Amino acid sequence: MNKQAAQQFNIGIVGLGTVGGGTLEVLTRNKQLIEQRVGQPVVVTNVATRTLRPEQVAGVPVSGTDPFAVANDPNVDLLVETIGGFDPAFEVVRQALANGKHVVTANKALIAERGNELFALAEQHGVCLAYESSVAGGIPIIKTLRDGLAANRIDWLAGIINGTGNYILTEMSAYGRLFADVLKEAQELGYAEADPTFDVEGIDAAHKLTILASIAFGIPLQFDKTYTEGISYVTPEDISYANDLGYVIKHLGIARRTPKGVEMRVHPTLLAKSQLLANVNGVDNAILVHGDAVGSTLYSGPGAGAMATASSVVADIIDLARQQAAGVGKPVYPSLGYTQMETELRVLDIEDVESEYYLRIPVQDKVGVMARIATVLETHNINIEAVIQKESESDEVPIVILTQRAIERELNKALEEISEHAAVCGEIIRMRVEPFHGGGN
Amino acid sequence: MNKQAAQQFNIGIVGLGTVGGGTLEVLTRNKQLIEQRVGQPVVVTNVATRTLRPEQVAGVPVSGTDPFAVANDPNVDLLVETIGGFDPAFEVVRQALANGKHVVTANKALIAERGNELFALAEQHGVCLAYESSVAGGIPIIKTLRDGLAANRIDWLAGIINGTGNYILTEMSAYGRLFADVLKEAQELGYAEADPTFDVEGIDAAHKLTILASIAFGIPLQFDKTYTEGISYVTPEDISYANDLGYVIKHLGIARRTPKGVEMRVHPTLLAKSQLLANVNGVDNAILVHGDAVGSTLYSGPGAGAMATASSVVADIIDLARQQAAGVGKPVYPSLGYTQMETELRVLDIEDVESEYYLRIPVQDKVGVMARIATVLETHNINIEAVIQKESESDEVPIVILTQRAIERELNKALEEISEHAAVCGEIIRMRVEPFHGGGN
Repeated sequence: MNKQAAQQFNIGIVGLGTVGGGTLEVLTRNKQLIEQRVGQPVVVTNVATRTLRPEQVAGVPVSGTDPFAVANDPNVDLLVETIGGFDPAFEVVRQALANGKHVVTANKALIAERGNELFALAEQHGVCLAYESSVAGGIPIIKTLRDGLAANRIDWLAGIINGTGNYILTEMSAYGRLFADVLKEAQELGYAEADPTFDVEGIDAAHKLTILASIAFGIPLQFDKTYTEGISYVTPEDISYANDLGYVIKHLGIARRTPKGVEMRVHPTLLAKSQLLANVNGVDNAILVHGDAVGSTLYSGPGAGAMATASSVVADIIDLARQQAAGVGKPVYPSLGYTQMETELRVLDIEDVESEYYLRIPVQDKVGVMARIATVLETHNINIEAVIQKESESDEVPIVILTQRAIERELNKALEEISEHAAVCGEIIRMRVEPFHGGGN
Repeated sequence: MNKQAAQQFNIGIVGLGTVGGGTLEVLTRNKQLIEQRVGQPVVVTNVATRTLRPEQVAGVPVSGTDPFAVANDPNVDLLVETIGGFDPAFEVVRQALANGKHVVTANKALIAERGNELFALAEQHGVCLAYESSVAGGIPIIKTLRDGLAANRIDWLAGIINGTGNYILTEMSAYGRLFADVLKEAQELGYAEADPTFDVEGIDAAHKLTILASIAFGIPLQFDKTYTEGISYVTPEDISYANDLGYVIKHLGIARRTPKGVEMRVHPTLLAKSQLLANVNGVDNAILVHGDAVGSTLYSGPGAGAMATASSVVADIIDLARQQAAGVGKPVYPSLGYTQMETELRVLDIEDVESEYYLRIPVQDKVGVMARIATVLETHNINIEAVIQKESESDEVPIVILTQRAIERELNKALEEISEHAAVCGEIIRMRVEPFHGGGN
């Protein structure tokens, strides 16, 4: 950036929807406070929007509907991208960075899928592309990984990073309701989109996990290598069995550094009820992080909402305004927290992951079935930790098994053999169980 | 500081006890990682210690036992103060700052009681006095308030900020044990000091709360105005009654900005069991923060221990090393997060605080006592939320009351009148109840 400390820090905003509108509101409402923190006024000087609401007109310096007019405005020090999506957001961000402006964005898809090239461009131009608000809304988890835990080799992290999914699972757990019923209600309440695929099939969480893994381990963004399962296959029956075994089911994003490579996976996960993370309910998000020095720390709060997300957008603005006020020659923080990236760490295929497992195997209640299942598991070096086989009035009864730690490839082979057994009369349900042991495993 | 970006960042450490030793270990073990994050080597170049352990000798550049030799070493960019206490820590820190060195300290007493003059000195010399590790060990709560939540007007925060106290209350709650028994065991296990006063009487928590309140609200440090109660008066009986009412008892530090002034208080507090903060157990710490934009966020993790505390010391080192590497002209962050402090905000006397209350009033079981108590409370505008009066085989039976929100001065007057009633046959126990409503109250 190489700017002399100026008298004020000028903000351009493109897109005044939910997050952009919230950002404008926080910057306006807390103007004096922000100036006290930065030591200079932070002023919105140029806004492009197609959605100006009447109550926003007063005092807002709208230049028109063209975001590129903001990206090319020489008076703007920092552009806030709150358009969303890729087109025109990608080009607008690219243009602003190329013009030597900092960019702050809440656009998780853009960062997760196009971040590598945008970060390279930012570095080339000596500016920063900041994205605190792209993960977990108002929880400052990006800065925590970049700064607060910077002394640590991060061993793993696990997060509830989609509020819609957590709301649905919380309701299903509390009232024994069906996934489809709760989803429908969530849509009516505005907690879920009309097309809920992004949320309930884990794509949104996978975007966020990709970003978290990069800043935790210093690896390039690799969204296409993140394994993703949604929550639509979770049933009240499985929630109830998990409960009997002392667990709750949460939709987690897990990133772990292992001697074999990096795990990046999003899926329903059984957690012991005593875990603080298991008690994060409703639309809240939370991330549990394990570092080699600090051990485990947890961060929770609102993962969405206009004002919570704007809190993180404006935190990034303040961060960069403070740097300009201090007269830095280049950004203090590399965009992903590392000046040199770890390019050798490969992402593991899901079949190479080791985990404990919850299995529900529907069988016809015949003598010897359990023994046969146990034998097959044993053949594949999979030890059983616990079993539930309840009395049933029907012919069909599920066998529920918790396994000890096993390699997923071996489990898959075992389940294939088991599913071919004549007594197995339906689809086998399998979920991963996370005990959160310490580091380095 | 006004230094040109140098080729490496030189650290001096004074005191190699628990935290100093942990700091050295993290800097050594994660040397390469830290260089990747900073972009330059961070090197320990001078250590003064009186407690060098044989296993620490190899490769440690010990100059001797005199901490001032480190404070006056022109090659040292940053001094880590891990001596503890005031003498000679205060003078060492003062000298280092006066010499234009950054200082990182874990010394909460020093910051809480002498921080105002030291921060002024740091500012005068263009350097930073950093203290992440002084509050809540490995949880990066200082940076969170300074940076991650910087967009927010902080309305209030409440924290479990003493691990010893939380361990004792957790054990008392889980097993119905007496305070004195658990304390004795904690001392044997090394969780509590031989003289436990600092921990169990709330002084340690008051130091930390003083610091949190300053960075949250931008007010000068005012340790002497922090109201402090310890946990030694908490009984299994009160824990049990609280449980019956749906609450757990935690030792909290609470800071709140109200229209009348700032509350700063440390005391046993009833929290609804459903609160995530109520589920933070054992030696862990946690801080719940409410900001006007973000709402409530929670941060939890280990509040003590050599490596967890060192995690925060080294995070501060990395923060300042990154700033030097970026060639800043002055520190990016003011020590307390504000370039202008709020000097007009006064700290409220505890009698001016409004709260809900838990009361346990030992009475002789006579007709009309409850009615009399209710009348006295009503006279002082105190409404009753809930009452427990159990059958008893003895003459003496406690009346347990939860009140609605009331001013403490009025409650004190009411309790004085009640205690004079002939049927009241012992000391009235009173604890505050915290419902954690939103902002601005």
